[in-house]
Amino acid sequence: MIDLLLSRRDTPTKQAILEFVAAVTTENGPDYVPPSERIAAFDNDGTLWCEHPVPVQVMAMLDGLTQAVQQNPDLGEQPLYRAAVEKNMAWFAPYMSNERIPELIGMMLEAGAGETQSEFEARTSAWLKQARHPRFGTPYTQVIYRPMVELLDFLRDNDFRVFIVSGGGMDFVRLFAEEIYGVPRQNVIGSNMKLSWEYRDGAPVLVRQAGLVDPFNDGPGKSINIQLHVGRPPILVGGNSNGDVPMMEFAAASGKRHLNLLLHHDDADREYETEHSAEQALKTAEERDWTIISMKEDFDVMFPA
Amino acid sequence: MIDLLLSRRDTPTKQAILEFVAAVTTENGPDYVPPSERIAAFDNDGTLWCEHPVPVQVMAMLDGLTQAVQQNPDLGEQPLYRAAVEKNMAWFAPYMSNERIPELIGMMLEAGAGETQSEFEARTSAWLKQARHPRFGTPYTQVIYRPMVELLDFLRDNDFRVFIVSGGGMDFVRLFAEEIYGVPRQNVIGSNMKLSWEYRDGAPVLVRQAGLVDPFNDGPGKSINIQLHVGRPPILVGGNSNGDVPMMEFAAASGKRHLNLLLHHDDADREYETEHSAEQALKTAEERDWTIISMKEDFDVMFPA
Repeated sequence: MIDLLLSRRDTPTKQAILEFVAAVTTENGPDYVPPSERIAAFDNDGTLWCEHPVPVQVMAMLDGLTQAVQQNPDLGEQPLYRAAVEKNMAWFAPYMSNERIPELIGMMLEAGAGETQSEFEARTSAWLKQARHPRFGTPYTQVIYRPMVELLDFLRDNDFRVFIVSGGGMDFVRLFAEEIYGVPRQNVIGSNMKLSWEYRDGAPVLVRQAGLVDPFNDGPGKSINIQLHVGRPPILVGGNSNGDVPMMEFAAASGKRHLNLLLHHDDADREYETEHSAEQALKTAEERDWTIISMKEDFDVMFPA
Repeated sequence: MIDLLLSRRDTPTKQAILEFVAAVTTENGPDYVPPSERIAAFDNDGTLWCEHPVPVQVMAMLDGLTQAVQQNPDLGEQPLYRAAVEKNMAWFAPYMSNERIPELIGMMLEAGAGETQSEFEARTSAWLKQARHPRFGTPYTQVIYRPMVELLDFLRDNDFRVFIVSGGGMDFVRLFAEEIYGVPRQNVIGSNMKLSWEYRDGAPVLVRQAGLVDPFNDGPGKSINIQLHVGRPPILVGGNSNGDVPMMEFAAASGKRHLNLLLHHDDADREYETEHSAEQALKTAEERDWTIISMKEDFDVMFPA
């Protein structure tokens, strides 16, 4: 087994990962799991990339709403659009929790109803190229945790099937997951607008509809959508917040050796220090002896060079 | 390029397949498609395995309903259950079309509501082992078209990502797709019951609910679900009925070189001869110059030995 986890310090957490992977890949060993069942599921926001000070997709949507008002000024009279144009973060603050962010994402997605899937992809790809993280000054696609990206590589190297299971928009994450994480579009699970199949000038187009596909991909929805998209439980889960607990419970109930990794944002110097929306997850992880990754202690390097 | 299509006669259809694959895999060629975009989508019933005289999943469900009546005789008073116990195919006949089979599958799936996902999988796997095709006398998992299974291998050998996109139950097809087609569970798309996430004795379970996930996976639903599960259009589609036309249109609108293959059931001696539920598909394929596979002319061998 080649150790690809070069950006991690040699802590008990790193040893837990190495030992787990050795155990499930050792043929004829008591914990062996065949490759087709080596499912790994990772949350995205706060687990693979930085979600502070404001989740990236929320930033993308604010800019999208602002653009929409430029094209159609009447929209500026609606509270959501007005708050976006004014970058009035106080208006958005009440929604910034695991419990309420689905409401906000729902409103924003509905504001985008009527757009074709291709229009959405072109507009959002362009945004990803020009937007910069307010603190780090780089494109968001570079504010990714290098030790976690190495872990994805390490798992694939050991015949794991790696999936992203994000509360964010499925087609948003798909626009960059392949390039920055090596995760192909079909391995990205997320929240979705409903789609319709329509004909324009004789050619079919997918059109984004008001209304979300049920269930929203957070909390129990993450487990249900793993079943729908993958068809079996994960044996390794990476997450950072309360909404990731059910998929960790899904791994724990798999009947196989499993590993649940909870990132603790405890590094104010290099990233952020917060337990917001992670209170329950940290408590559960301690009670059940899941593995807590201290970003401050375990990460030797935070972001790619 | 190694020709794995040994069970096909050397007809124009076979040449069309070889030529298409050569074109999209030739780097620097005008039709080159990178591996991540080489998406192939195949219907299952009537395209990969035999769906006559009665679709396999309908047979499984009839036996499931009959079992349920044995355990709870009161159920036998409901028309659906009574027809199942009496194997009254005349009662089921009106539903045997692309347009109406969703209704029947819906009723049958709803009859199974309340079962956990694990119970469903165990019960249905046991059924697949003991059931036999009424004409061929072998397990249904052996009544698969060998030339089509070879095509799946050939495509994977050329770095295609092969998906099954079935009108049938997603978790039904997942029970055998890996073993007989080499298609892992996560590459199977189909129709689904809604699932709930519940806790029993402290452990989470997935429970099958009355009600289907929208959209039902047929017709336009196939295109929409390919977008949701895969995230991009297919460039090769295999199908056999009217319900497969939209995903063929999706490939045709991909902006890439594409190949649509429509199986024509024209071999009464070795399989079945019927255009039922394929009338529109055959007409469309002729109009748009899609490739029609004549099972009688193109298949050298029908089933595995």
